[in-house]
Amino acid sequence: MKGAVLHAPRDVRLDERPDPTIAEPGDAIIRLTATCVCGSDLWPYRGIEAVDSPAPMGHEYVGIVEEIGREVTSIRPGQFVIGSFFASDNTCEICRAGYQSSCVHRQPIGAIGTQAEYARIPLADGTLVATAEVPPADLIPSYLAASDVLGTGWFGAVAAEVVPGTTVAVIGDGAVGLLGVMAAAHFGAERIIISSRHASRQRLAREFGATDVIEERGDNAVARIKDMTDGLGAHCGIEAVGTRESMLQAIGSVRPGGHVGYVGVTHADLPGKQLFYSHTHLHGGPAPVRRFLPELIDLISERTIDPGKVFDLTIPLDDVAEGYRAMDERRAVKTLLTLD
Amino acid sequence: MKGAVLHAPRDVRLDERPDPTIAEPGDAIIRLTATCVCGSDLWPYRGIEAVDSPAPMGHEYVGIVEEIGREVTSIRPGQFVIGSFFASDNTCEICRAGYQSSCVHRQPIGAIGTQAEYARIPLADGTLVATAEVPPADLIPSYLAASDVLGTGWFGAVAAEVVPGTTVAVIGDGAVGLLGVMAAAHFGAERIIISSRHASRQRLAREFGATDVIEERGDNAVARIKDMTDGLGAHCGIEAVGTRESMLQAIGSVRPGGHVGYVGVTHADLPGKQLFYSHTHLHGGPAPVRRFLPELIDLISERTIDPGKVFDLTIPLDDVAEGYRAMDERRAVKTLLTLD
Repeated sequence: MKGAVLHAPRDVRLDERPDPTIAEPGDAIIRLTATCVCGSDLWPYRGIEAVDSPAPMGHEYVGIVEEIGREVTSIRPGQFVIGSFFASDNTCEICRAGYQSSCVHRQPIGAIGTQAEYARIPLADGTLVATAEVPPADLIPSYLAASDVLGTGWFGAVAAEVVPGTTVAVIGDGAVGLLGVMAAAHFGAERIIISSRHASRQRLAREFGATDVIEERGDNAVARIKDMTDGLGAHCGIEAVGTRESMLQAIGSVRPGGHVGYVGVTHADLPGKQLFYSHTHLHGGPAPVRRFLPELIDLISERTIDPGKVFDLTIPLDDVAEGYRAMDERRAVKTLLTLD
Repeated sequence: MKGAVLHAPRDVRLDERPDPTIAEPGDAIIRLTATCVCGSDLWPYRGIEAVDSPAPMGHEYVGIVEEIGREVTSIRPGQFVIGSFFASDNTCEICRAGYQSSCVHRQPIGAIGTQAEYARIPLADGTLVATAEVPPADLIPSYLAASDVLGTGWFGAVAAEVVPGTTVAVIGDGAVGLLGVMAAAHFGAERIIISSRHASRQRLAREFGATDVIEERGDNAVARIKDMTDGLGAHCGIEAVGTRESMLQAIGSVRPGGHVGYVGVTHADLPGKQLFYSHTHLHGGPAPVRRFLPELIDLISERTIDPGKVFDLTIPLDDVAEGYRAMDERRAVKTLLTLD
């Protein structure tokens, strides 16, 4: 089969890779309907995370079940399924507490690589959720978004404890930040303030429910948000970048006793003393997307939410290299890769 | 009056200082009944926090109201009062949310210095809580503990979301850690594991409710706690030290989805990536002791709790230098300073 492989920084190629087969009795093989490029794929693409040997890429996926292992009972061939970027058993104590991305048996899908024609999904019963029927083509992007960025934005808002009436600051105008806006609106936030300097992202943010778009960054953004909130700061902050600067902006934007949900993969040390005196709550990490999938699938199938709008570049998997370039150069928020 | 002043690292003296007077209409002057030395006083004492000019010391206090400003209505001369290390108005939005130590009008009592005969307490109505009557001498240490270390341990347990049935790891066997044990027991923890290598502190920890005392530290303590909890980690962690190592131990000891309450004044950067992947909730900061004072005063007056036991050295204020030395050399957990 064809599959994307990163050979070196900025060198991603569509290679011939072995067809996946059932390796464990809990596995399923899916034929990808669509896949996409994640902001976190840019860390190794840019060489910020080292790539020692050619690495299969991709951890977001929707597709049709082709084959199942003999122990799989909850899905069957022919069904359209969505899963998250960590396979999970969904039965251990950690999963039952809602932290499937820290499942005691978790397996990273990124090591498998879903920017490909087929993928082997371990722990299929605990990982994959089937839709009631094979969805119409126009819903595919939204279901694909649920595989990671929607679920991650959702977790950001849940971790930030967004409830009706709150003021929410969103840091990051990528797909996750924008879908954090959508989640905050869904949870009844009264005011949603996002930092963005890109007209198209600003527009999408407003469409998803942002009430205020500010162009300031860093300390200036913090000062602006304090001005907008009687000097106190927002109740909630959703951090969707992962740098020290963005964490400082998130912590600084939130009032004492408020909550920061951080879902950008943190690549920096955090300033302990500033965090201490901020009096904020901090929660985040790799989103337990599986926790939210049933609800997100319902919201998408009912057409209550349309998260697929974050894909602003749709190209064939064959053009995967251009898909990375467009995101790297910020010409695209998020690239959807189609399969025949 | 006499008051302790830090002149240089390890040079604390009882100097003659000006008698405090009412400076603002919301002030009260109290005559100290007792005061004490805090673990956080050791940061400047040891020169880890710079001391540029002679600094009055002390921020823990109980005493008798001597005089009140014309706007003070909730306390009157002759009452026995307890307050926290931040003066707070107790009426602003932040105070009403329970974060009085981040009150928009907060004033640090440490700048006033309560290791002295008298102290001026600003925002007296919002800061001081009076007992029903002047307490018997044997309760003074417990009320004094409520001024900081008990309230701080309490906040650690609240921030760690200790609820009935939880397993709690406590990092730090100083007064705050030990009183974190007491708080965790009060909130119904099923198992309370503390790291300690000091026989007297181990004994007190058990007396306060610790079910397990381990001698391991750092990664070894984390491994031991994982062993004791089916490989998952504790539900809750109370961090009461403030170093990078202790934060790592706290984060490592707690399972994904669990809660770390950190109340040691953090003096280090925190490892963002480890925190991210730990999936823990993190909350802490300077304890909003004022939030807990009414409840703590009730528990002490009813003799339900006896937090005064953390004082294992009681000497006159005149011997303040020895009080610091004993804590610096870990000969004492906490020094109580008596006044005539």
